[in-house]
Amino acid sequence: MRFAPLPAGLPASVPFVGPETLERQRGAPFAARLGANESAFGPSPLAARAMREAVGQVWKYGDAPSFDLTHALADHHRMSPANIMVGEGIDGLLGTLVRLMIAPGDAVVTSDGAYPTFNYHVAGFGGVLHKVPYRNDAEDPEALLDRAHATGARLIYLANPDNPMGSWHDGPVITAMLDRLPDDCLLVLDQAYAEFAPASAIPDIAADDPRVIRMRTFSKAYGLAGARIGYALGAPDLIAGFDRIRNHFGVNRLAQAGALAALADQGWLAHVVAEVATARDRIAAIGAANGLTALPSATNFVALDTHRGGAFARTLIAALAQHGVFARMPGVTPLDRCIRISCAPLHELDVFEDVLPRALSDLATR
Amino acid sequence: MRFAPLPAGLPASVPFVGPETLERQRGAPFAARLGANESAFGPSPLAARAMREAVGQVWKYGDAPSFDLTHALADHHRMSPANIMVGEGIDGLLGTLVRLMIAPGDAVVTSDGAYPTFNYHVAGFGGVLHKVPYRNDAEDPEALLDRAHATGARLIYLANPDNPMGSWHDGPVITAMLDRLPDDCLLVLDQAYAEFAPASAIPDIAADDPRVIRMRTFSKAYGLAGARIGYALGAPDLIAGFDRIRNHFGVNRLAQAGALAALADQGWLAHVVAEVATARDRIAAIGAANGLTALPSATNFVALDTHRGGAFARTLIAALAQHGVFARMPGVTPLDRCIRISCAPLHELDVFEDVLPRALSDLATR
Repeated sequence: MRFAPLPAGLPASVPFVGPETLERQRGAPFAARLGANESAFGPSPLAARAMREAVGQVWKYGDAPSFDLTHALADHHRMSPANIMVGEGIDGLLGTLVRLMIAPGDAVVTSDGAYPTFNYHVAGFGGVLHKVPYRNDAEDPEALLDRAHATGARLIYLANPDNPMGSWHDGPVITAMLDRLPDDCLLVLDQAYAEFAPASAIPDIAADDPRVIRMRTFSKAYGLAGARIGYALGAPDLIAGFDRIRNHFGVNRLAQAGALAALADQGWLAHVVAEVATARDRIAAIGAANGLTALPSATNFVALDTHRGGAFARTLIAALAQHGVFARMPGVTPLDRCIRISCAPLHELDVFEDVLPRALSDLATR
Repeated sequence: MRFAPLPAGLPASVPFVGPETLERQRGAPFAARLGANESAFGPSPLAARAMREAVGQVWKYGDAPSFDLTHALADHHRMSPANIMVGEGIDGLLGTLVRLMIAPGDAVVTSDGAYPTFNYHVAGFGGVLHKVPYRNDAEDPEALLDRAHATGARLIYLANPDNPMGSWHDGPVITAMLDRLPDDCLLVLDQAYAEFAPASAIPDIAADDPRVIRMRTFSKAYGLAGARIGYALGAPDLIAGFDRIRNHFGVNRLAQAGALAALADQGWLAHVVAEVATARDRIAAIGAANGLTALPSATNFVALDTHRGGAFARTLIAALAQHGVFARMPGVTPLDRCIRISCAPLHELDVFEDVLPRALSDLATR
C-alpha cells in the first residue's frame, strides 16, 4: 500500500494508550481510573438529561455551525459568535488548526514534555517541532519566544494551566508573551484546564486579538470527555478559516445538546471545581504519607514527585496498574520523576490510598 | 491571517447547508425533513436505550480502537478486526483516507455530480479532481476507469448504490472494475446506502483485497446520523495506515454504544428497510400524481424527474422550502432535472403530498 509521502513517513504510533486497551491487556478492569484527567464527578445532571432527551433526535445530523451552542458561548465569554468555533474536542480542533497554519517544513515551538497529541498533529502535517525545556516544572515563556524567533515559528503551543505538571502562569505573563511574539506567529493557548485555575491565571485577551487562539473543552471540568466537544476562541478571520477544511457535520448532536445544558449549569461547574480542590488536597496527603510530594496544581490532577528518576516512576505506574489503579506520568526528564494522578471522587482515591504503599513496597523488594 | 498555502487557496465554502441553517434563514421549522437522507424511522429502540444508558459514562473518553464495535463488525462481515476502522462517519473517514493517499497534485477521479464532501476533502488536501459524466443516471465504471488510466489517478470514488440518483450496479460490475484498476489506484467504494440495496448490488470482495476500501455508516439505515459513526473495510495495511493520522479518541462514546446495539438488532434494520421500500413507492406515487417520474432507487431516497431543466428544479426546491418541505437536488446537468426526496414516515410524506402540487402551482404562475 503506497501512502502519500507525508503519511508514509509517519510512524504507526498512537499518542496515548487508553485505559480500556490497558484493561484488555491486563484482563481485568481498573478499580480506579486516575490517568486521563477525566471528571468522574460527571457532567451536570441537566446536561445528562439533555443528552438522554436528545437521543430521540439522533437520527438527524447535528447542526453544522453548532449555532445554539456558539451563541451561548458568545454570551458566556462576552464575544461575538464570529470569535468561536465549536469542534470535536481540543484534539480535533488542534488538528484542524495545525492543518490550517502549517505547511511541510514550517517550524512549530512547544515544550519538551507538553501535550503529545499536539506534537502528533504537527508531525502529521509535516511541521518541524522545536522543543524547549520546562523551567521549574512550568512551561517557559521566554524560552518558547526565543526559540520561536530563532526558528521563524508559525505556532507556539502553551497550555495554561499546564498538563502534565499542573503548573500555571499568571495572566499578565501570557499577555506579555503576545507582545513579544514574532510576526506571523500564532500563540496556541490550550486552556483545557482553565475552569480549575485561579482567576489570575486567565489572561485578559481581546476577542479579536489576531495573535492568539484559545482552546477550551467540555471534556474536563464539564465532565463530557466521551461526547467529544470543545471550542476555539480567536479572531474572526482565523475562526472563519476552519470552515475551509473542517468536517462540517462532524460534531455529535447529543454532544451539542449536552454542552449547551452543561454551559448553562454554572452551579454544577462550581460544585465540580470545589470537589476537585478537595481531591487535590487528598491526593497530596496520600502522596505525603508515602514520601511523594505534590506539586502545586491549577488543574484536576496532581503531579506527585517521587524524588527518584523516570525509571522508578515508570515502574511505579506499572505497579499501580497491576494493583488496579490507572495513572499516567510525564514522558520526559526531568518531569518524569513525577506520576500524575487525576482528581476523582473520594472512593476512588481510597483505592489509590490503599494501593500506593503496596505498589511502592513492590518496587522496594525488587 | 496567513494560512498555509494549501488552505489559503481554498474557498471558505461549505459542501452542504444543513436544514437547521435553512430553518433559521426562513424563520420557521420545516414540516417535513426530506433533504438529508436521514432516517426518521429512527434507530433501533435498543440502540436508543444503549445510548441513554451510556450517558452515565460520558465523562470517560471513548475507547480509541472502538474494540467492541470493531469485533462485532468483524463477526457481522466475517472479516478480521484488522480489516475494519471505525471512524466519525463516512465524512470523517473519507477525509482521513484522502489525507493518507493524496499528495498535492495527485489525480483523483469521480463522477460529475457525485458526493460533494468527497470532492471537498480532495481539494482540501491538494488533489486534482477529474470528473466523468454519469451515464443513464448512473455512475459510469468504464468512464471512471478510462479517466483513471489517462490521469494516473490514485483514487476512484464510486458510490454503489449512488447518491444523488439512487441508481446501482450489480456486484459483478464492481468486482470487474477492480480487475481493470490502474496499478497504484484504489477504488473508494462508498456503500452508505448498501443496507437498502438488493443483495445483488453488494459485490463479493475478499476482505484483504488491497484494491478497494469500502465505506459503511450507521447514519442511514441504522438511523444514527447525529451520532457520527461509520467504518471502513479494507486490507489490513491500508486500515492500519489510518492510525498514523486519525484522531484516535475522536469517536463519541455514546455513538460506540449505540452502534454496537444497532448492529445487534438486525430485526429493526429489516423493519426500517421495509418501511423505506414502502416510502419509496409512496414518493413515486406522489410524484406521478404531479407529473414527476421516480427513478429506480436502491437507497432511502427517490430522485424525481421533473422533465424540466435545472433552473426549474432549483426553483421547485425553493418553493418546497417555502411551503415547509426540506429537500435537495443533484448539483449538475443533466442530473439536476431531478429533485431528491428522502424516505420518511408516511405522515411526513403526507406533508410532501400536500405541498408538492402547491409548490408546482407557484412555479406555474410565475
